[in-house]
Formats: sequence, C-alpha cells, structure tokens
Amino acid sequence: MKGQKKTLEDIFMAGVKAVDPERAIQKYVRRQGNQLFVGDCSYGLDSYRKIFLFGAGKGTAPMAKAMEDILGEWLTNGLIIVKYGHGIPLEKTQILEAGHPIPDKAGLEATEELLKQTQECTEDDLILCVFTGGGSALLPAPTFPLTLDEKQETTHLLLECGATINEINAIRKHLSRSKGGRLAKEAYPATIVSLLLSDVIGDRLDVIASGPTVPDESTYSDCIKIIDRYKLSDRLPKSVTDHFIKGAAGSLPETPKPGDPVFSKVQNLIVGNNRESLLAAKERAISLGYNTIILSSQIEGEAREVAHVFAAIGKEISQANLPISSPACVIAGGETTVSIQGRGKGGRSQELALACAIAIDGWEGISLLSAGTDGTDGPTDAAGAFVNGATCKRARRMNSDPRDFLLTNDSYTLFASLGNLLKTGPTRTNVMDIICMLVQA
Amino acid sequence: MKGQKKTLEDIFMAGVKAVDPERAIQKYVRRQGNQLFVGDCSYGLDSYRKIFLFGAGKGTAPMAKAMEDILGEWLTNGLIIVKYGHGIPLEKTQILEAGHPIPDKAGLEATEELLKQTQECTEDDLILCVFTGGGSALLPAPTFPLTLDEKQETTHLLLECGATINEINAIRKHLSRSKGGRLAKEAYPATIVSLLLSDVIGDRLDVIASGPTVPDESTYSDCIKIIDRYKLSDRLPKSVTDHFIKGAAGSLPETPKPGDPVFSKVQNLIVGNNRESLLAAKERAISLGYNTIILSSQIEGEAREVAHVFAAIGKEISQANLPISSPACVIAGGETTVSIQGRGKGGRSQELALACAIAIDGWEGISLLSAGTDGTDGPTDAAGAFVNGATCKRARRMNSDPRDFLLTNDSYTLFASLGNLLKTGPTRTNVMDIICMLVQA
Repeated sequence: MKGQKKTLEDIFMAGVKAVDPERAIQKYVRRQGNQLFVGDCSYGLDSYRKIFLFGAGKGTAPMAKAMEDILGEWLTNGLIIVKYGHGIPLEKTQILEAGHPIPDKAGLEATEELLKQTQECTEDDLILCVFTGGGSALLPAPTFPLTLDEKQETTHLLLECGATINEINAIRKHLSRSKGGRLAKEAYPATIVSLLLSDVIGDRLDVIASGPTVPDESTYSDCIKIIDRYKLSDRLPKSVTDHFIKGAAGSLPETPKPGDPVFSKVQNLIVGNNRESLLAAKERAISLGYNTIILSSQIEGEAREVAHVFAAIGKEISQANLPISSPACVIAGGETTVSIQGRGKGGRSQELALACAIAIDGWEGISLLSAGTDGTDGPTDAAGAFVNGATCKRARRMNSDPRDFLLTNDSYTLFASLGNLLKTGPTRTNVMDIICMLVQA
Repeated sequence: MKGQKKTLEDIFMAGVKAVDPERAIQKYVRRQGNQLFVGDCSYGLDSYRKIFLFGAGKGTAPMAKAMEDILGEWLTNGLIIVKYGHGIPLEKTQILEAGHPIPDKAGLEATEELLKQTQECTEDDLILCVFTGGGSALLPAPTFPLTLDEKQETTHLLLECGATINEINAIRKHLSRSKGGRLAKEAYPATIVSLLLSDVIGDRLDVIASGPTVPDESTYSDCIKIIDRYKLSDRLPKSVTDHFIKGAAGSLPETPKPGDPVFSKVQNLIVGNNRESLLAAKERAISLGYNTIILSSQIEGEAREVAHVFAAIGKEISQANLPISSPACVIAGGETTVSIQGRGKGGRSQELALACAIAIDGWEGISLLSAGTDGTDGPTDAAGAFVNGATCKRARRMNSDPRDFLLTNDSYTLFASLGNLLKTGPTRTNVMDIICMLVQA
C-alpha cells in the first residue's frame, strides 16, 4: 500500500495543482502594456475611466492576488468576499470575510457594499470579477422585503422535499438581488469580465456562485410550478409565496434573460474546472508509466453505489485488461452524494472509498484514492481516503467490520484507525472531487 | 431515435447470439472419433463403461442438444432439469420440468432421481454436466430431515436481513445434498466434466447453479457466524439451527473442500459468460464504425445510481471526447439491483434506462439500451428499454413526469406508453445484463 499511496497522492496532487486559483488566472489572463488579454478577448485598459476587481467565493483571494499582480497600477480598487479565515494580504482590494456555508449578517453587509459599489459604476468602467464555489452563500442579498431567515427556510424546505438542484437554483435566483445575472444588471452599462473557477457538474455558468453575471433562463412562473409540484405553498413563508405570485403576475422585474442588453458587454470565462484537473492528473499518471483513461469529470450519484462501478472496472482490468491494460490508472471526477443513514463521521469521498474497499476485498493489485480537491471531505479534517484489496482484511484484524462503518456513515473513524486518510490541509482551490484507481496485475 | 434503436438492438443481439448455449458448447467441446476435446482437456471415450449427460438450469436444454449432437452414439443416456416450458425434444436425454424461481415438488422429485442416477455411477463412467442460471432453484434437495419449506424460509429471512449473496450461498450449500460440490461427491469416483454458462458476477464456479461439482470453501462454523451476525438464531426454523450446530460440532459431513479427492477427476469449464457477450457486442459496434470500449462485465450496484455513471460518461464523450472520441459506443454488463420503493412494474434494466433518461434529459446524441440477455427484465415481457436525450421531453409531452415513474419503480408503464421497450422473447441463454450507450457529437 505504501508505494500505491504515494503514487495515488502524487497523481491527485498533480490534478489539484493544475487548478490552483492563481495559476488558473495566469493561464487565461495576461497583460501586455495597456492591453489585457482574457481568453479570446482583449481589453484596452486605457479606454476605461476606472477598473474594479469584485468577487465572492472561498478561493477568490488568490485569484484576486493574481489579478492584482497582472493589472498593477491599472487597478483602481476592489472588493471581494471570502469565508472567515480565507483572507490574504492584498494591495488594492478590500477583503471582507463572512459566513459559509450558512450565510450571516457579515455576508449581508458585505454584499450590500458590493452591490453599492457595482451600482456606482458607469459605462466607462471595467469590472473584473472572480467567482468560485461558495460564492452563492457569500453573496446573500434577499429581495426586499424578504429576510435572510425566510430565504434560508425556503432553501431548507426545498432540500427536504427532494427538489432538484436546478429547481432550488431557480427559486434562489428569484429571491436575490445579486444572483441570476442581477449583479450584471446592477453594473450595467459597465463592461464586465467574470473569471470563474467551476465547482459544479457540467460547468454551468449560471450555477457557479449562482451566476451573478450570467443570464438566467428560469422565471417566476417556474418558481410557482416548483412550489406546486412539492405542495409547498402552505409551508413556505407567506412573504416568499407572495413574492413569487407578484413576480409571476408581472409586477416585479424578472432576472435578466439570455439576449438581454445588460449582457452585451459581459464576458464569462471558466479558468479552471474538474476536467482540467483530471487532464493534469492523467498526464502525471502516464509519466509514471500507467495506461490511463479519464472516465468522466461529471460523476454524480450515491457515493456507495458509484463505488461499485469503479470496483467493477478495477476487477475487469485485473482479469481481462478491459477497458485498458494493466498497469492501469482510471481517473474520474465530479461530486457524489451521501444519503445519511447513521450518525458516524465521514464525507462523500471517504464513503465512496469505503464502499469500494468492501467491493474489492481480497483483490490484490487494485487501489483507489477518493478525495476533494479543496482538501476537505464532509465535516472532517481529511481530504479523502486510500483503500486497496487488503483494507478490509486489515480492518477485520482490528476486529472492525467495514460494513458496520458503511452502515453508519462512519468512514472517517475506520480510516483514521487504519491510517488510510489523506490530509492535505486547505488547497485554496475547489473543482469538486477526484477519484483515482490503480490496477496492477 | 429510430436509427439509434436499431443500432443498439443490433449490437445487443450480437452479444446475445455469442452466448447462445448451443454455440457456447460447440465453441468449447468437439469430438474427433473416440476423442472428446473439452477446453484444454481430452477424454478417450472408449475408455469409459458408460457416458451420462446430467444437468440443471433454464438454458440447459439447448446445451444438452448440442452435447447429444457431438457425442452421437457414445452417449448412454441423460437427465436434465429445466424450468416449466423450457423442454425441447432430445434423443437420449430425459427432460424433467420443475418450478423456478420458487422450487417445487417436481423439482424435489427430479433432483432425487438425478442424485440416484449419479450415485449409481462407477469409476469407469464419464459424467458430462451442463449447468446454467436457475440451476440452484431447479436442484432442490434439502438435507435430511429438513423440508423444502424450512430451507426456503431460511433463504427468505437471510435476504430480508440484508445478508450478502456469499453468506446466503454458504447457508444454502450447507442445507443441500446437491449444492457446494455435493453432487461431485455423490458421483465419486466417476469422471466429471461440467460445462457452465455463467450468470454470476465474476464467474465464480461455486456460485453458478450453487456449484454442484465445485469445491466449497465455506463451513458449518461460517453458517453459525452468519446466523449470529444477523441475530437469526431464534427466528430460523429450529431444525435448521440444530443442523448447523450439529455440523459445526463435527457430527455431519462437511461440503467437500478444495483439494478433496472427490475433485481429482473433475473438470469445470465456463463455456459462456457476460464478458464473451460484451466482446462480441464490441466487435459488432466497431464494425458499425463506433469507437468502442468495454467498461466492465461485472457492474453491480443500485440500478438508478449506476445509471448516473453512464450518463456522466456519455456527457464527457459528448463534450470532451473522453474517455473515447465520438462516435462512441460504451458497453458494459453485469447485474444491478433495485431497492423497491413503489408498486410499479419494471425491472432492473428498465429502471437503469429510466434513471439514465432523466440524467441525460436534453442531451442530444446520447442514447442507451439496457436489457437482460435472457430476454426478460423483472416480472415483465420486455428484455429492457431504449432511452435517449429526448425521452423525457416525449414523456412530458404526454403529461408524464419520468421522475414520478422512477419514484414508484414503474419504468415499464412509462416505456410501454412511449414505445421504448425492447421485446426479444426468450433468448434461451442468460449471462446477466448488457448496457450499451451510443454517443454521437
């Protein structure tokens, strides 16, 4: 296991490093004199009256740092909102810290300040934005007269009744003054360039940080339909239901839609995502001598069930050199879910690893690392965990039945006792999770 | 969809045909004069006093037919047990029909007859056996003094409490006079050649038809441990618990273990399995112009969750040509499970297809067929179902929400109304399920 562990961590970290926020910015943004190049676009910096740097999200501090370095004297000033403890010293950009994942008063005040500064921008200004995962919670701005509590109660009820993430997003965008393109509307007619680090499946621009500068396709009528579908009209705060009814009746401004003029001078660009991370991990695995495939960067589903598919592929490689020949490395990414059944300690990545350990019990030559690129898996201090065909045997020798730990969602406790945890500390980035499996005949 | 459907069915049927029981036998067994070649071994037919053909399983009739054709005059006589309605005319082999999946009195009597004939064999005899899926239910022979009802109650309780398939097999083998190598023990010292069509994950010889001619590694002590683990000692029939206690105390003969002399003249050979089926399907897909990979022939897990992984791979191919380039065909096999939540009509293959349809909603160019190689999926007349990125839209147009059908395990009802079912009729073979996905950019 020792050698496998080192190799798996090596491949994983190659993936993480490829999406470091600072490097991500440097890869897509550069300046030559007064010309700023962002992806396929360029901006003549001397044509703007003022240049601002705004943003929100857990990983935005290093992105802002990179932007300050690139812009130098051209930057007028800036304001970004990060999670408590995630601030770093910046030259011209003010950092406000706020609550995450539960929004708080500090977040409300910070967002008010950001909206105010945005509104003050003119058509002669350039706004550079940085957004990452966590941006949604760090940009709370309930539409008047709703309160933060009412908004959160709404989200909570929707989660509880099994609404899809798309449905929850539609609702949230229609209760907010910052989300669903509304920040762009406030800034209009300033020029906006948004740089996004994607922590969502499929890299949907309107989902990352709830898309403050991205057109929204959902409507107030959709919100009413969602409420009806889950029979929530009597359970939601009355102010929320009233708001949607008013909106659907046309008495409130809609979120700006695709084609709206407010987006005529907006560029949204993803500067890092799970796939980039996997491609770098793949390159590293190949350099270490493994036949390597990337399955997908969009893995979803219940962690313990998804684990079965990885085990099945590992066994097939081991027995039949399918889909690729041994020594093989299978890489995938995405974000699985865990339906909580017990009261144990763990996270989705550790749970996937545990279920896989049980499925590959006794299979020598198969090993797997499943971990979060942000260095955190669930409410634990681990990024994820390593397992191999001998993990269950080692557990049983300590009189632990791995299935009991899976039953109670207690993967962390088992892996801590086995020394199988991966602890990286905060990586400053987040492009969801990586799963890496090695198979040696 | 029409073209995709035809292509998917074409690829699936190429897989099914490759494991037709008759063809499977012809692939591995041939005779030249008095020499019978079976896989890597050969048998001089003139050195045996008598040559018998025994067997049990849903697909054994065509296997017996092929064996009769190969052996010709050399065959003395035979006896096979098949499911009601699965008999075909044979020359020298008696066919007895019995209950499946629930064993019945006819099965009991047929098994008694088979055991009697086996016991009469001498060391100068050659026994050729054919086993397929269903063989376990068709070979009921509870150890004296247990009854079939007591045995079934035991299996039922084990299933209910979440015992693993390995645990259930250990228990079943220790309550039987035919399973777990006991048929080989009865036949000893005759020579045995068993030809198996595998319907189990990983092709474990001791699991196919419960391994009548295969060494068993489990013990009476294991059975006691399993009963303790699930706290069943007070719930099982007293005769069953007593039987295990007696066995663990050494008062009853164990199932024959690896290395036991009863296996000194036994050859067990798999003549068809899911992987062979997938390889043939792959060949067909390649000939149709698709870049093709086999993911695994050992897919397990909850059908609706496994579906997410296929959807994720389809999307990745569509967006990034990973793991292979479009036009792509991804093939996999195995046996998923369904945790029943509702009272709808469906099967694991149709449920996987439905969950996939929801996950690829709106993704043009992705289509999938998920179906059982035996032509049956759950208690339905369909083998499986086709879906693509437009399936959900078509359902909504008919005022059906696909998610409602998934929630109630009612995939068949939806697919019947959409015309998305694959109906092949009985295929006479069974190597579990095949999943085939096409992705066209």
